[in-house]
Amino acid sequence: MSLNSIFQYFVPKDKKIFFPLFEQAAVNVVEMATLLVKAVNAAEVSKRETLYQQIDKLENVGDEITHQIYLELGKNFITPFDREDIHSLATAIDDVADLIQGSANRMSLYQISEMTEPIQKLSDLILQASIDLQKAVGELKDLKNVRNIAESCIRINSIENQADYVFDRAVADLFLYEKDAIRLIKYKEILAALETATDRCEDAANVMESIIVKNA
Amino acid sequence: MSLNSIFQYFVPKDKKIFFPLFEQAAVNVVEMATLLVKAVNAAEVSKRETLYQQIDKLENVGDEITHQIYLELGKNFITPFDREDIHSLATAIDDVADLIQGSANRMSLYQISEMTEPIQKLSDLILQASIDLQKAVGELKDLKNVRNIAESCIRINSIENQADYVFDRAVADLFLYEKDAIRLIKYKEILAALETATDRCEDAANVMESIIVKNA
Amino acid sequence: MSLNSIFQYFVPKDKKIFFPLFEQAAVNVVEMATLLVKAVNAAEVSKRETLYQQIDKLENVGDEITHQIYLELGKNFITPFDREDIHSLATAIDDVADLIQGSANRMSLYQISEMTEPIQKLSDLILQASIDLQKAVGELKDLKNVRNIAESCIRINSIENQADYVFDRAVADLFLYEKDAIRLIKYKEILAALETATDRCEDAANVMESIIVKNA
Repeated sequence: MSLNSIFQYFVPKDKKIFFPLFEQAAVNVVEMATLLVKAVNAAEVSKRETLYQQIDKLENVGDEITHQIYLELGKNFITPFDREDIHSLATAIDDVADLIQGSANRMSLYQISEMTEPIQKLSDLILQASIDLQKAVGELKDLKNVRNIAESCIRINSIENQADYVFDRAVADLFLYEKDAIRLIKYKEILAALETATDRCEDAANVMESIIVKNA
Repeated sequence: MSLNSIFQYFVPKDKKIFFPLFEQAAVNVVEMATLLVKAVNAAEVSKRETLYQQIDKLENVGDEITHQIYLELGKNFITPFDREDIHSLATAIDDVADLIQGSANRMSLYQISEMTEPIQKLSDLILQASIDLQKAVGELKDLKNVRNIAESCIRINSIENQADYVFDRAVADLFLYEKDAIRLIKYKEILAALETATDRCEDAANVMESIIVKNA
Repeated sequence: MSLNSIFQYFVPKDKKIFFPLFEQAAVNVVEMATLLVKAVNAAEVSKRETLYQQIDKLENVGDEITHQIYLELGKNFITPFDREDIHSLATAIDDVADLIQGSANRMSLYQISEMTEPIQKLSDLILQASIDLQKAVGELKDLKNVRNIAESCIRINSIENQADYVFDRAVADLFLYEKDAIRLIKYKEILAALETATDRCEDAANVMESIIVKNA
């Protein structure tokens, strides 16, 4: 039993503050991932640039939400879950947003014109993981459907494994077939940013699993 | 209200231990950043090498100070701020020092002879952010001038944004104009280390903002 | 004196849960490092591939152990050391395992045929650091031989310094003599993963030093 678990018996938990913020952060990540999937499947460069800019704006929105969670954490002695878990979950979701924006930013800066299959697959996996992230976060507020949270977390872990596989295969192929070192660097960095986004989804899932264990 | 806030009413805070250490750490970073700016503006290679070595020495000094803060944190049950904030602030300042040294180390190892404008600009931004870091850290001990801390933190955030912009532009230019892949790698890594130093200054600013909120 | 130090006088510590898990995690890292040293010294490619696969399997074992430690941390209010130290130590040991596997994975994906001297030296240093890690972790359960822990930690720090030196020298040599940019990228990334493994050993040593200080 954690310190928070003891306090929760005599102090009302203020769930009204934290849960809507987490839900906003997760919805924002799903929107960003949706834009990313659109961008890597768009035929026109100008269309892509517009999507990159929309991703940028949503990343700023995500920063605001994360900042708000940290501020509330500083102001509230009693929190619905362990403080460290609230902090870690907020950070993990923010990192997913940062990496989606970072991937899009590199595609724009490096003037990537050819969207390869691994880029499209990884973007798709990020969207899938984000949707499960949002589902799980939405269930945190009452913990009535712990099984749903657990299942989303398991799916996120499986998606992350698939992303690892796609990334490893794609990088090996780059080293085998790409003779232009500068192109190789560009694609490798974009693939790495995309793959790391799924790692951060897994981090968020791990925090939620830990929350379930503590509050079971 | 945090656990520390409760304890602080009946246990005297030992500010004498932590604040001088934080001030030393911040002053050390300002000195390192000053040497870095000198190095990237020095015409002679031998002069630069001397400066790189001085940066190395100061990084060791910084390590000692950080280690001391961690040791004191282990020995003291009551701390002037939340333990996690003291740990995070010490780590962030130490990371800035590591990245300044890491940038200088790469310049030396990669035998960078031409100091480009983005390298000079980023080094300058690191120095500016370090000076604001030192100012803010210096105000932590009595929290009489919370506004000064807040203003330094806002400036650090703005400097980090400028550094992001300079970095993105410089990397895009490398991919556009640098045809030598090995040179591209060298410059890109140095720019990345410099830019990350400003990120860690922002991390330190975020911890200080959090300290202000909790102790307001 | 920490919060845990106070509680430990009236609540029995459950050492039976955490220490065997830490010991398993450390033994697992030593086994992984032993396989890595074998792989980078193996003459036949097929032999190496078998060793890489064994490393992969042990990394999964390590993940399970780390997950178990996190779960126990969630379930137990009283821990033998500060919760944050248990978490940090488990994370640092897991990171060492990840980086050994990551290094092996890159050697396999990049189809590295020539194992250079710096790769062999760094692998050897990882093994040495892992052995000291295991020794120190094994002494944590009774803290009767604090000096042994301290000496292992000092040796790990010294090994990390040697690894830094080998890495810096090897990367400088790559930039001086390797004209094939793609080969340079491959080797540089493998060297970086190996060197970072020793950094994470040092992180683990730092946590153990902190545990000694708090419980002295």
